[in-house]
Amino acid sequence: LDDGRIGEVEAVVSDLHAADLADLVEQIGPEHRGALIDILRPQFDGEIFAYLSQSLREMVLDQLEPREIAAAVAELESDDAIDLIEDLDADQQREILENLPPETRALVEEGLTFPEYSAGRLMSRDLVSVPQFWTVGKTLDYLRTETDNLPEDFYDIFIVDPMHKVVGAIPLSRIMRQKRSVKVGDILTEDIRTITATTDQEEVAFLFRQYGLVSAPVVDGNGRLLGVITVDDVVDVIDEEAEDDLLKLSGVPDTDIYRAVLDTTRSRFTWLFINLLTAILASSVIALFEATIEQIVALAVLMPIVASMGGNAGTQTLTVTVRALAMRELSNTNAVRVVAKEALVGTINGTLFAVIIGLVAGFWFQDHLLGIVIASAMIINLFIAGLCGTLIPLGLARLKIDPAVASAVFLTTVTDVVGFFAFLGLAALILM
Amino acid sequence: LDDGRIGEVEAVVSDLHAADLADLVEQIGPEHRGALIDILRPQFDGEIFAYLSQSLREMVLDQLEPREIAAAVAELESDDAIDLIEDLDADQQREILENLPPETRALVEEGLTFPEYSAGRLMSRDLVSVPQFWTVGKTLDYLRTETDNLPEDFYDIFIVDPMHKVVGAIPLSRIMRQKRSVKVGDILTEDIRTITATTDQEEVAFLFRQYGLVSAPVVDGNGRLLGVITVDDVVDVIDEEAEDDLLKLSGVPDTDIYRAVLDTTRSRFTWLFINLLTAILASSVIALFEATIEQIVALAVLMPIVASMGGNAGTQTLTVTVRALAMRELSNTNAVRVVAKEALVGTINGTLFAVIIGLVAGFWFQDHLLGIVIASAMIINLFIAGLCGTLIPLGLARLKIDPAVASAVFLTTVTDVVGFFAFLGLAALILM
Repeated sequence: LDDGRIGEVEAVVSDLHAADLADLVEQIGPEHRGALIDILRPQFDGEIFAYLSQSLREMVLDQLEPREIAAAVAELESDDAIDLIEDLDADQQREILENLPPETRALVEEGLTFPEYSAGRLMSRDLVSVPQFWTVGKTLDYLRTETDNLPEDFYDIFIVDPMHKVVGAIPLSRIMRQKRSVKVGDILTEDIRTITATTDQEEVAFLFRQYGLVSAPVVDGNGRLLGVITVDDVVDVIDEEAEDDLLKLSGVPDTDIYRAVLDTTRSRFTWLFINLLTAILASSVIALFEATIEQIVALAVLMPIVASMGGNAGTQTLTVTVRALAMRELSNTNAVRVVAKEALVGTINGTLFAVIIGLVAGFWFQDHLLGIVIASAMIINLFIAGLCGTLIPLGLARLKIDPAVASAVFLTTVTDVVGFFAFLGLAALILM
Repeated sequence: LDDGRIGEVEAVVSDLHAADLADLVEQIGPEHRGALIDILRPQFDGEIFAYLSQSLREMVLDQLEPREIAAAVAELESDDAIDLIEDLDADQQREILENLPPETRALVEEGLTFPEYSAGRLMSRDLVSVPQFWTVGKTLDYLRTETDNLPEDFYDIFIVDPMHKVVGAIPLSRIMRQKRSVKVGDILTEDIRTITATTDQEEVAFLFRQYGLVSAPVVDGNGRLLGVITVDDVVDVIDEEAEDDLLKLSGVPDTDIYRAVLDTTRSRFTWLFINLLTAILASSVIALFEATIEQIVALAVLMPIVASMGGNAGTQTLTVTVRALAMRELSNTNAVRVVAKEALVGTINGTLFAVIIGLVAGFWFQDHLLGIVIASAMIINLFIAGLCGTLIPLGLARLKIDPAVASAVFLTTVTDVVGFFAFLGLAALILM
């Protein structure tokens, strides 16, 4: 691109898969991105959007004309089209929708009526359904002749009753083995997992994972068939949800490494600001003991150790608890058992580290009473860390607040405050 | 179970899906688990193992006889059987293998020859392959008559040459629409992603995600077809890998909430011990400035704020970097750009928080010079946090060390040491 050898670049990109083109757009320097998009422009492959990170997707959309975007969108499956359009602002949405072919437009508009992150947004409208009184032969003939109106790839044929309610499904690999005279109603699997369109995508991912599903029908409130979700859509959801927990625990709103510097700075500011407030709170606990520290400076040297160990032990417990909640392994049935176990684990590790740090501090400052003080504070703080590392996320989950997002702040506030207060308080009592 | 109403329990469990039975085994109190297993025992469904957490799997395996385990394993697909057997110790493996039917045994033993976490362990041996000179009609007849030797569910038919090398694939939904006289060699898709049996499972997950695959053929070093990996196996891998990063960043070896107290305590001890060493290192930096703190106790009150802000800002950067490395968004091409950006983000946020904390500290202790000291230390530490939050994981990745596992320790050591040193050092210079 630097040398302006556009023709060669064109030759290279024409052979690439959409996912690889998206990678190319991401990896290339910002100074060349515009030129690359211009090369791809004449026949922009809509699938590229599906593989681009959020901020670059916006950049590319800004550079293309609404007409060009509409042409790219028209080629997409309805779920991918919705995924792309839902993030645009109202004006852009209108412009693109107006440029879409009427049927695609109707499907996309209907899809947008479902809540964000719901099965309705995730599902594809392209599916195969046949009435239960059809025979295998009639179904196979239908598949063979109606190729234009049917999706290119599918795995299950859904069987519906006259009200278009789902009564069962037949995997492709099974229907092919049946005699042509058999009624589909007689060979269908009734035991299928049906998903309501308003179901949250996290719940959808759970069902696919729990029952090893490959595809599942999506129905409206009356059980009528609307669409189908396939496992490849769920892979993206699983990635998103896993990333979500990781990010929230670390206080980062997204992992988009292509976002601009000022956007990134702003997005991280809030979490750091909350952290500043909790750090000042912890400092004010220390300030209560200024007189004590003035007399025994060793306290200032040792106090971060107690707080840091509490924070780390608490984070271990917190991570396990948040993950268990996300994977639905933690419920009312076993919550008490898990809390008790974590508190016990904290106390045992607290005792072990109390011995170690007690000896280290005692020898370092030649004061065995100081060793006893820090040892006691360590046990108290690691017990509290185990207790709060489970109770805080469980409590937030019960209040319907996402435990991943707020737990870490609460927890480190508790372990800092308790760590400083226990250590300095005991020191004031015993050493003064 | 408490009332000994075994009959009723038997009636309930006989209707449940293996995944739900596994949940039941997990949720039930440890005191009843043995009795429940005894109820399930006569026809133990091997699939339950696939859904159980590691520690409970071991418990259940201990309770069952090798003969019973072998009967359950014989019902499984070869990849699930391998997944179960690979975790056992050599004695148990031998005992179970001896009780398996000969063909299953051969498949499992062959599977175990592939490296752990490789495509060879992940793949299923049950697949459909036909020679390229067959017609569609012959293929469909073969599928219809050979039902006993073919897998129950499959999505693609693989086409092989006389050397059993993969030349392409045809999705089921496409072959059904063709005329019977067409040769499969003429309608196959050549552009498929073939995976070598020794490929790491992380790489497999990347390929499925990158190209939206549903199934992919696995071949040996000579390109001969060995097995097939389907997307539902990859979902488990994605879950595992995502969990892995989350856990390593928090210093927890696993999220198994059913593990016993002492095992859990031991597994967390190492990380906490490393953390203790780094905390002592940070304390020894503070000890350098004992004389300064003795004269200005306010320093002891304020110093944790600088360290804590550096730790949090660094963790934000670290999380984004580790995730970007895992998702292959960060490469040599853009590494320098990302490092520079994060250092800049750190400096900008550092400046903003320098103003805030400078004012707070200045008013709190009525000393504007103290405000200037803490403000300067904040900028330095947040710049270092941004720089090291990217450089440490990138450096570890280059040394082929998993960046998720060791980065956090290095990073917080740096931000603690720099935070205390910059703040106390500047205080000693300016205020004394």
